[in-house]
Amino acid sequence: TPTQLEVAMDTMIRIFHRYSCKEGDRFKINKGELKMLLQRDLTESLSCQKDPELVDKIMQDLNANKDNEVDFNEFVVTVAALTVTCNDYFVEQLKKKGKTSSTLI
Amino acid sequence: TPTQLEVAMDTMIRIFHRYSCKEGDRFKINKGELKMLLQRDLTESLSCQKDPELVDKIMQDLNANKDNEVDFNEFVVTVAALTVTCNDYFVEQLKKKGKTSSTLI
Repeated sequence: TPTQLEVAMDTMIRIFHRYSCKEGDRFKINKGELKMLLQRDLTESLSCQKDPELVDKIMQDLNANKDNEVDFNEFVVTVAALTVTCNDYFVEQLKKKGKTSSTLI
Repeated sequence: TPTQLEVAMDTMIRIFHRYSCKEGDRFKINKGELKMLLQRDLTESLSCQKDPELVDKIMQDLNANKDNEVDFNEFVVTVAALTVTCNDYFVEQLKKKGKTSSTLI
């Protein structure tokens, strides 16, 4: 049976392909679809960001590359960057509360 | 309720903290613990890698930084790199089989 971490990795792969299969190159998504994906699938995380400008920056970076296509690598890097900011928020909450464990969401 | 992608991000955060809380700086893990984490929590994924040398390379990179500590950012980048290679494997299987969807694990 897969571990929790493997399920998490599998989820990232399947969510990407759920969007990439829709049209054009079925192994890439266009930036509009990625924005939709992030807004639809990361509603709570995006709103929990300590630094709302970071999200804007990520969105701008995604638009900087003129080919208008996002491959899986770019997608995972984006999710990783967002996870780091969520972790920063989580750690700050932990330090405030003085707890050693908590749930993020 | 959190989305699947948010659960995946939360899993990465919680797994990291499960190890980092154990000793020393509770927001960092040492490289030995990270190796243990990867070997324990990524058994199937590591064995599915097309390129076993990549895993060795990641392990070497983790040892290159002499401070012997891995922060959450380094951890997420490592998981992202492994997910990309898993996706490469997944895509190759899809292309061979000519399917449009499948499960990785």
